[in-house]
Amino acid sequence: MVPQWIIEKKRDGGALSEAEIRAFVDGFTDGSIPDYQMAALAMAIFFKGMTGEETATLTDAMMRSGDLVSFDGWPRPTADKHSTGGIGDKLSLMIAPLAAAAGLAVPMISGRGLGITGGTLDKLDSIPGYDTRLPIGRFKQIIADVGCSIIGQTDRLAPADKKLYALRDVTGTVPSIPLITASIMSKKLAEGAETLVFDVKCGRAAFMRTREDAQALADSLTRVGRALGRKTAAIITDMDRPLGRAIGNALEVAEAVETLRGEGPDDTRTLTLELTAHMTVLGGIHPDLETARTALATLLDDGRALDVFRRMVAAHGGDTRVIDDPSRLPQAQAIVEVNAASEGHVTDVDALAIGRIVLQLGGGRTKTDDAIDYAAGIDRLVQVGEHVQAGQPLMRLHARDASLTERFIPDALAAVTLVPRRN
Amino acid sequence: MVPQWIIEKKRDGGALSEAEIRAFVDGFTDGSIPDYQMAALAMAIFFKGMTGEETATLTDAMMRSGDLVSFDGWPRPTADKHSTGGIGDKLSLMIAPLAAAAGLAVPMISGRGLGITGGTLDKLDSIPGYDTRLPIGRFKQIIADVGCSIIGQTDRLAPADKKLYALRDVTGTVPSIPLITASIMSKKLAEGAETLVFDVKCGRAAFMRTREDAQALADSLTRVGRALGRKTAAIITDMDRPLGRAIGNALEVAEAVETLRGEGPDDTRTLTLELTAHMTVLGGIHPDLETARTALATLLDDGRALDVFRRMVAAHGGDTRVIDDPSRLPQAQAIVEVNAASEGHVTDVDALAIGRIVLQLGGGRTKTDDAIDYAAGIDRLVQVGEHVQAGQPLMRLHARDASLTERFIPDALAAVTLVPRRN
Repeated sequence: MVPQWIIEKKRDGGALSEAEIRAFVDGFTDGSIPDYQMAALAMAIFFKGMTGEETATLTDAMMRSGDLVSFDGWPRPTADKHSTGGIGDKLSLMIAPLAAAAGLAVPMISGRGLGITGGTLDKLDSIPGYDTRLPIGRFKQIIADVGCSIIGQTDRLAPADKKLYALRDVTGTVPSIPLITASIMSKKLAEGAETLVFDVKCGRAAFMRTREDAQALADSLTRVGRALGRKTAAIITDMDRPLGRAIGNALEVAEAVETLRGEGPDDTRTLTLELTAHMTVLGGIHPDLETARTALATLLDDGRALDVFRRMVAAHGGDTRVIDDPSRLPQAQAIVEVNAASEGHVTDVDALAIGRIVLQLGGGRTKTDDAIDYAAGIDRLVQVGEHVQAGQPLMRLHARDASLTERFIPDALAAVTLVPRRN
Repeated sequence: MVPQWIIEKKRDGGALSEAEIRAFVDGFTDGSIPDYQMAALAMAIFFKGMTGEETATLTDAMMRSGDLVSFDGWPRPTADKHSTGGIGDKLSLMIAPLAAAAGLAVPMISGRGLGITGGTLDKLDSIPGYDTRLPIGRFKQIIADVGCSIIGQTDRLAPADKKLYALRDVTGTVPSIPLITASIMSKKLAEGAETLVFDVKCGRAAFMRTREDAQALADSLTRVGRALGRKTAAIITDMDRPLGRAIGNALEVAEAVETLRGEGPDDTRTLTLELTAHMTVLGGIHPDLETARTALATLLDDGRALDVFRRMVAAHGGDTRVIDDPSRLPQAQAIVEVNAASEGHVTDVDALAIGRIVLQLGGGRTKTDDAIDYAAGIDRLVQVGEHVQAGQPLMRLHARDASLTERFIPDALAAVTLVPRRN
C-alpha cells in the first residue's frame, strides 16, 4: 500500500477501496503517513469527491481510530442531534433535556466555538461549576441517572478526526462534503447513539451558503448514517438571520432556560420541538411527528424538560441557581441599548453581521486558544416582521467596557434593515 | 500573508499575485511554511493550473532560492540544452562538446537517473575518475578553458526545487505542467546560460505520452524562458523507440564516443546536430539552421568535437584512455546475444520495454539511493526499418551474471516486433 499511489488514484478520479482508505487513515493516525500526504489526499478529495461507499468507509475508519462508547442493552433508545453551526443556535441546551424528558437517552459530545459560530461547550462553561471534561464512565452514569449529558470531545474519541480537522483548517480543505461528513459522523457515531438527527444550517452565516450545498451535505450525512446502521434524519434550516433574540454564551443560556420554561422566542421554540420530534419518532417514542410535537410542547410547558436540565447541570457540578436567577450568570460591565434612528418594519437582521459583532465584543474566538468573555454578546434583538418606532431599542450590546460597546453601535444599526411604512 | 488563504485562492481557480507566490516559496524554503501546506498548494495547482505569468514568477522565486551562476562579461555566448528524459538518450555527452567546439560556452548541470530514465551524471560516473561534484568556481574555470563542463546539481542551486521535487514525488503532484516547468527552468536559469534549448520527449517511454501534453510543456518552457529574458527553443522528439543502439551507462558512453567520432547510429547523429544547431543559431554563432547543421557535421567528422570531449573528461579527472579504448569502461561479466526466432522486418522496438529490461539488468535505480551497475544494459540493438534473418542478433544483454541476462531474453524478444516478408 504505497500512499502516493492512493493519492494518485483519487487525483485521477478513481474510487478508493476499503483497504486503501483504512490503510491511509490508520497510517495517518499512527503517524506513519505524514501530514503532507494527507494534505495532498484531502485536496484531491476536495476536487474529485468520494462515493457514498467511500465516505462511509472513511467515516467508519475515523470512528474506529479511537474509543467507542456503547449503550448496548440499555433500556432507553439512544439519540443525539448535531447542528452544522449558526448564530444564536443554543438548541442543544433545550433538545438534550427535552428528548430525555420524553424517554430517550441522549449522549451528546459537543465542540467549542470558532470564528462567528458559537459552541455548546462554551455556553455550558458560562454556568459556574459546570464540568464539561468528564470521563466516559461518568458521562454514561449521568445519562443513566438523568437521561442526558453534554460533555466535550475527549482525545480518545475519533483522534483521526481531531488530527485531520486541524490539518484541513490550514490547508484549504475544509469545504468538502465527504470530509465534512466523515468529520461530523465519525465523532457522532463513536458516541454510540442509535438515532442521529442533523440540523444543516443554510444561509449567509452558515457554512453551507446555498440550499443546494446544504441538501448535498444533508443527503451525505443521512446516507452514511444509514450505511453504518443508524437511524438518521436531516432537516435544513435558515441561517440568514440569527436564531432567537440572544447571541453570546451566558446570554444564550438565559434564553435556553426561558425556552425550557415554555417561553422564549417563537423560532427557537419551534425548531427545538421540530428537531426533538424527529429524534423521538426515529427513536420509537412517538408514532409520528404531529403527536411528537404536541407531547414535547407539553414537556416544555409543564416544566419537566427544565427539571431534566436542572438535574443535568447539578450532575455536572454546575450552579443550578442560575436557572431561577439568570443574574448569577456572568454579567457584562457595559450594556448599551442600540435604538432605531427612524420608525420602520424589520425586513432583515443580518446573521453574519451579528455574528461578527458578537465575536468582536469578546464573545468568540478567532484562534482556538483565544480566551472568551462569557458575558459578552447581544440580547433583546428584534426579529423580522416586527415594527419599531424611532428611538425604540433594536438590541442590547454587552461587553467588558463601554468603549467596546460604543464602537459597535454603527455596525449594530447596519445589521438591521428597517423599511418605513408607506403612507 | 496567510498560507491557507493562498491555497484557497488557487483551489478556487484564482491567479496568485507575485507577492503571494514569492512569500509561499520563500516560506517553504526556510521552513516557516510546512510541507503539508506546500503539498496542498501543489495539488491545487495540479487541478487549477497556473497562468504563464504565475509560472514565470514561481520559476523565478525557485531560481532565487539559492545561488545564481553568472557569465556576465564572458566573451562567448552561453547555451545549454535540457531533455525531459528518454531511453538511450545520451545526447548531452555529444552536444556539450559539439556546441563548445562551435564557439559556445556550455554550463551544463545534470541529474541522475530514476526508474527507466537514465541520467547524464550516471553515464559520466561510468568513466573512471570523472568527478561530477565540482564546486561552481572550478566548473566555470573548466568552461573557460575547454568550452563546456557537465556537473551534478549542488545543494546551493535552486534548493526550493530540490525540496519541492522530493515532496511532489510522494504526494501525487508530479504531472503538472507549471510545476514541471518551474522545476526544470529554475535549475537551468540558475546555471546562467543565455540560451536554452529543450528536447521534449513524447511517446510511450516518455514522461509526456501524448503530442498534446508534450506541446503544452514545450510552450510553457519557452514562454517562461522568454518571460525571464532568455533565448529559448523547444523541439518535440519521438520516445516510442529507444534513441540509438546502446542503452545503459557505460554502453552509452561508448556510443557517444562513436558519434563524436563522426560515426554512430543515424538517429543519434541527426538529433545531436539538430539540437546543437538550435543552440548555435540562438546563440548567434550560425545565421540559420541549415548552415549550422553543415558546420556542426564537419566538427563531428573532423574530430574537433571529440577533442573538446577529451579535454572536458581530462579537466574533470577522468581517464581519457576510455575514448580510444572503450574496453577500459566498466565491462559486464555476462553478455548474451538475443537472436531472432524467425526472419522479418523490424517494425517496432518498444522503448518502455527496453527501459524496463535495462533497469532490471542493474542499469538503473528504483529508489534514489539504489546502487547502479554501470556496465549493465543493452547494445547492438536493431532499429526500425532493418531486416533480420532467423538466428541473427536483435541485441546483446549485459549484466553481472548469466542468470540475469538469461532471465530477460523472453522480454527482449517481445520488445522487438518482426513482420515476415510477404511472398
